Amino acid sequence: MSELIVIIVCGLLSLAYGGWAIQSVMAADAGNARMREIAGAIQEGAQAYLTRQYTTIALVGAVVFVLAWILLSGIAAVGFLIGAVLSGLAGFIGMMVSVRANVRTAQAASKSLGAGLEIAFKSGAVTGLLVAGLALLGVAIYFAILTGPMAYAPGDRMVIDGLVALGFGASLISIFARLGGGIFTKGADVGGDLVGKVEAGIPEDDPRNPATIADNVGDNVGDCAGMAADLFETYAVTVVATMVLASIFFTGEQATTLMLLPMMIGAVCVVTSIAGTFFVKLGANNSIMGALYKGFIATTLLSAVALAGVIYGWLGGGSTFVSATGVEMTGTDLFACGLVGFIVTGLIIWVTEYYTGTDYRPVRSIAQASVTGHGTNVIQGLAVSLEATALPAIIIIAGILVTHSLAGLFGIAIAVTTMLALAGMVVALDAFGPVTDNAGGIAEMAELPAEVRSTTDALDAVGNTTKAVTKGYAIGSAGLGALVLFAAYTEDLRFFSANAAEGSIFAGINVDTLFTLSNPYVVAGLLFGGLLPYLFGGISMTAVGRAAGAVVEEVRAQFKARPGIMAGTERPDYGRAVDMLTKAAIREMIIPSLLPVLSPLVVFFVVRAVATPADAFAALGAMLLGVIVTGLFVAISMTAGGGAWDNAKKSFEDGFTDRDGVVHHKGSDAHKASVTGDTVGDPYKDTAGPAVNPMIKITNIVALLLLAVLSH
Amino acid sequence: MSELIVIIVCGLLSLAYGGWAIQSVMAADAGNARMREIAGAIQEGAQAYLTRQYTTIALVGAVVFVLAWILLSGIAAVGFLIGAVLSGLAGFIGMMVSVRANVRTAQAASKSLGAGLEIAFKSGAVTGLLVAGLALLGVAIYFAILTGPMAYAPGDRMVIDGLVALGFGASLISIFARLGGGIFTKGADVGGDLVGKVEAGIPEDDPRNPATIADNVGDNVGDCAGMAADLFETYAVTVVATMVLASIFFTGEQATTLMLLPMMIGAVCVVTSIAGTFFVKLGANNSIMGALYKGFIATTLLSAVALAGVIYGWLGGGSTFVSATGVEMTGTDLFACGLVGFIVTGLIIWVTEYYTGTDYRPVRSIAQASVTGHGTNVIQGLAVSLEATALPAIIIIAGILVTHSLAGLFGIAIAVTTMLALAGMVVALDAFGPVTDNAGGIAEMAELPAEVRSTTDALDAVGNTTKAVTKGYAIGSAGLGALVLFAAYTEDLRFFSANAAEGSIFAGINVDTLFTLSNPYVVAGLLFGGLLPYLFGGISMTAVGRAAGAVVEEVRAQFKARPGIMAGTERPDYGRAVDMLTKAAIREMIIPSLLPVLSPLVVFFVVRAVATPADAFAALGAMLLGVIVTGLFVAISMTAGGGAWDNAKKSFEDGFTDRDGVVHHKGSDAHKASVTGDTVGDPYKDTAGPAVNPMIKITNIVALLLLAVLSH
Repeated sequence: MSELIVIIVCGLLSLAYGGWAIQSVMAADAGNARMREIAGAIQEGAQAYLTRQYTTIALVGAVVFVLAWILLSGIAAVGFLIGAVLSGLAGFIGMMVSVRANVRTAQAASKSLGAGLEIAFKSGAVTGLLVAGLALLGVAIYFAILTGPMAYAPGDRMVIDGLVALGFGASLISIFARLGGGIFTKGADVGGDLVGKVEAGIPEDDPRNPATIADNVGDNVGDCAGMAADLFETYAVTVVATMVLASIFFTGEQATTLMLLPMMIGAVCVVTSIAGTFFVKLGANNSIMGALYKGFIATTLLSAVALAGVIYGWLGGGSTFVSATGVEMTGTDLFACGLVGFIVTGLIIWVTEYYTGTDYRPVRSIAQASVTGHGTNVIQGLAVSLEATALPAIIIIAGILVTHSLAGLFGIAIAVTTMLALAGMVVALDAFGPVTDNAGGIAEMAELPAEVRSTTDALDAVGNTTKAVTKGYAIGSAGLGALVLFAAYTEDLRFFSANAAEGSIFAGINVDTLFTLSNPYVVAGLLFGGLLPYLFGGISMTAVGRAAGAVVEEVRAQFKARPGIMAGTERPDYGRAVDMLTKAAIREMIIPSLLPVLSPLVVFFVVRAVATPADAFAALGAMLLGVIVTGLFVAISMTAGGGAWDNAKKSFEDGFTDRDGVVHHKGSDAHKASVTGDTVGDPYKDTAGPAVNPMIKITNIVALLLLAVLSH
Repeated sequence: MSELIVIIVCGLLSLAYGGWAIQSVMAADAGNARMREIAGAIQEGAQAYLTRQYTTIALVGAVVFVLAWILLSGIAAVGFLIGAVLSGLAGFIGMMVSVRANVRTAQAASKSLGAGLEIAFKSGAVTGLLVAGLALLGVAIYFAILTGPMAYAPGDRMVIDGLVALGFGASLISIFARLGGGIFTKGADVGGDLVGKVEAGIPEDDPRNPATIADNVGDNVGDCAGMAADLFETYAVTVVATMVLASIFFTGEQATTLMLLPMMIGAVCVVTSIAGTFFVKLGANNSIMGALYKGFIATTLLSAVALAGVIYGWLGGGSTFVSATGVEMTGTDLFACGLVGFIVTGLIIWVTEYYTGTDYRPVRSIAQASVTGHGTNVIQGLAVSLEATALPAIIIIAGILVTHSLAGLFGIAIAVTTMLALAGMVVALDAFGPVTDNAGGIAEMAELPAEVRSTTDALDAVGNTTKAVTKGYAIGSAGLGALVLFAAYTEDLRFFSANAAEGSIFAGINVDTLFTLSNPYVVAGLLFGGLLPYLFGGISMTAVGRAAGAVVEEVRAQFKARPGIMAGTERPDYGRAVDMLTKAAIREMIIPSLLPVLSPLVVFFVVRAVATPADAFAALGAMLLGVIVTGLFVAISMTAGGGAWDNAKKSFEDGFTDRDGVVHHKGSDAHKASVTGDTVGDPYKDTAGPAVNPMIKITNIVALLLLAVLSH
């Protein structure tokens, strides 16, 4: 298939772009000796953490690899390995660039805002394009091998199992990376702030704080590597799920063509994302956000054109496709679904910016509430976090209904595919954040002139907004992607029961009546699924609290043992805090990560033991949807609420004018109250909330794999 | 039917008990002139608020009454009126007793703990038994009139519509009362604390704080009248829903018998609840909680015996009932389902006590987290609130599966009926709280000796736990009750479509395949339903924040205008704060209350406009379940989290020993951090969380009524 060559070439282009961008970042000036020394400590810590994290995951991965080989096939096991390794690789390379770009951004920022922006964004773009490119390459090359040299038909169950296992590999890495990184970064952030800002009264990033290097390491392992693994997973899983649906819904030539479609879309959008990066240039108005949005808008418009090219130039706008369930769709219908994906992305970004931007009602209401104290700040922040779920949910609902009316379930899948096709650009915007955050830290610690810090602060403030915005995008696409996986589960079940032998566990199952809401197992499954994001959120918030508490104790101990630290005559032992957090994060990530992996199995086998196989499939399916429903709300409320708290605090840094016209500055009581909200928002938005994304999908993928295992 | 006479006599017994208990409370010593004066101000404020609240609701109610008459029938309109008036009456009488018992409890507490407990509990028992008794009487007498003098068959649609409308009347009052009362009480509490404790540095309930009377008024209109309306509604709706299911599922004599069953269970349990109140006596160990639990356990055990009497003495343990859907059940099966209801109640109470009691891990972890500051206190509280949903959800799931396996959907309905049959006793435990809280406030303001305050504080601490525990019970039973309503919706739909004429909107609808999760309208409905509790919670939290902010400003203005207040030489104008809050609460309660009333209509008619009637019914049904799923988690997490924060703060009042052995007292930084959590928890546990209960049910009842209207 010549299409696969095109797809692989586009994927390789992203690697080439990455190579070029890395080189151009590395060529920049790395600053003075003190800066390089600090950056070195961050590099060392980040690398040590990731090495340890991946070693731990490798142990779990090895067990899963063997299980996949025994229970499914060598092809599935290898697929799992590819997904896991590439996901880890995307995060690792991104982190390696990010920890080198930070110091160079700080140095460039001492020259001009534009120079700082360029390096930081280029570093983010490396991560972004590697995420999209590696995910696309992984899926495409494995598909090419299976259907080429190994001569399987594209829709063969071996191919499907291999691809689903690839998605599972990516998901498993992703949940560990998101949680482990999230616990590390927020443990350092919350703990460091508590003991530094609050107890010792020293500013953020002060070199006297023994947790300050750990805080900067956390930005890289959590916000960069963790986020990259998350989006890699969403990308890979979405493409795979769309391909699986295509293989189930269509037959013959049409099935093969439509299996290629998501990869084609991904491929052309890698190119448009690369093109989009060149539009990120500071304009005359010096608006950083404007520069970034120029890149995003250019990418989206170019992608819409490219999508038209794929549909009308390759697929055929008038071609009619008929699914097994009798849904008829034309190429133009699929084009329209793809456009819906872009529109949903744009609307979600817009709504997220409304809820987390400093200029709008929600954040201003939190800032205003801070004037009356810590308690009202948190109350208003929680109110905003709850309210912020409504519009994104309505946008997603509208997206589902419109695309379904155009092209059935496959239409939803195509819309999610185009959403994710923008991932290269969106991740670039996100990965830009930790670099600028680190640059600010380095500027502070290396005692660079105050102007440098204010330049990096300006970059960092934008980074906060883009981080919130891309989280909205990530969870929106994850929710829709999970719905596609759920559809794959029901259609797989239909396939297995239609082809079931007498006495098989699938015999006699009627998918059309199985998932009726009047079946108590469906209600029980929905409720059980619904509790998982809550329990998961609870455990991970506790983990951050515990890690932060450990940081507080470590820092207090250092202050006590070495009185010279506070006087500035003695250097704190930064490594101990990094080490301690590394151990804590790794230890704390295991149990919550296993929750979504094991829950589908427990539900299935427990119900199987007390009721019929049909009840067990019904409970499991309903559980998947329950996880999606509450997971969507938990994740959106946490990420939007956290972002809003963060920016409400930022409002005070430039002076917040309250309703009565009083101006509150940094250091005022209102500002202190806003710091409390920010602290609460930290694990909300950077640990528990985003980790719900891979969690939602992992339960769905495990269920798909369970079907495959049962059918063997 | 002679059974109806028995049921009505039992209901009248509760009124007789209420009359006796009121008299015995009123006969107690009302204390000195200052105490009577303070209590008078509270009475006046509470009465003024409730009058105004009910006037406003009456306007909405009048519109609904006319609509019900036009769209349905005079019988439905009258049913609506009965439900609304009795629900209001239960709250009103309860509040009237409570505002008179408070000062008498304070006076009795100056003699002995036992004397204080007796009056406070008796006052609570009046509310409790009126709630159960009036709800039972309302349903039974209206049913008796419709099937007696008016000669409708028990299962006639006119009877069903009348009963459902009665439930709707109760629900509508309840959501307004819960929200309005909740906003009033927490606006006063949060606002008063902020400006009093934090800004002015005066203790809680200090007579110099102009918001202190409003705070005490709030306890009565929110925690007493609001809670009473909520439980009245859950009770009435559950009995009605079970009767509706019986009329749909069974035919002939069996239908009539099983329609009487929930009322019979309610009737005997009114008697056992009255008996149980006499077991509440302080033992030798002076344990207040022990005394209350003695009453609860006695009621539960007696109720189990009484249930056995109803089943084996009246229904027949061996009688076999066969539902229209072919489910076969014996009297013994129904007895077992009833026992499951008691067990679920006991387990939920036990789990809630674990999550909100001062002696267990969750509350201790929040107290420990307070040591490191405001932020970690809130983080840990949120973690506990998320985690606290898991076990109750699992208990509810187990209850659903066990009862469904015994007797199908009707088995679930019977279990919820027995849960609610204990409401007389459970509400007594809850309504005890505001009385003791007020007693403490009066003791403080009237400057009674410190021992009196410590006696009322001991009573109040227990009141906090019982309030949390009964909230767990209320939301658990509301969730299950809503599932019964949802079942009534699906079965009603089945009935109407089976009897649909050609061209009717119900024609050709197949309920068995309608609610399949692979229908996009079902997914959209689930998501839309899921967002309602979030949006509702967000709006009501904002409302409390706004009301509290208004209180802060009012109090600040009084302090400024009358400098003598703080010096103790001038009396604050308590009435202004009460007035201001009354207006704010009434204004703020309207929009969120209408959200669940209008949402089902919007969903139905919007989907109807763009898709088929079947899609509209599917989306509406799924929306109902979506509200239940997320509503359950939102409500449990809010009420449990709020209770845990409250008691974490209480831990510091007796001195909290942290992990390192340091003791933190009242006034320490750790205590201040715990006050922040308590403030956040206030609207969580007393406004937004409990208001989700009636909200869940109102959406379900509106959907049922919509079916009735469409069938006309």
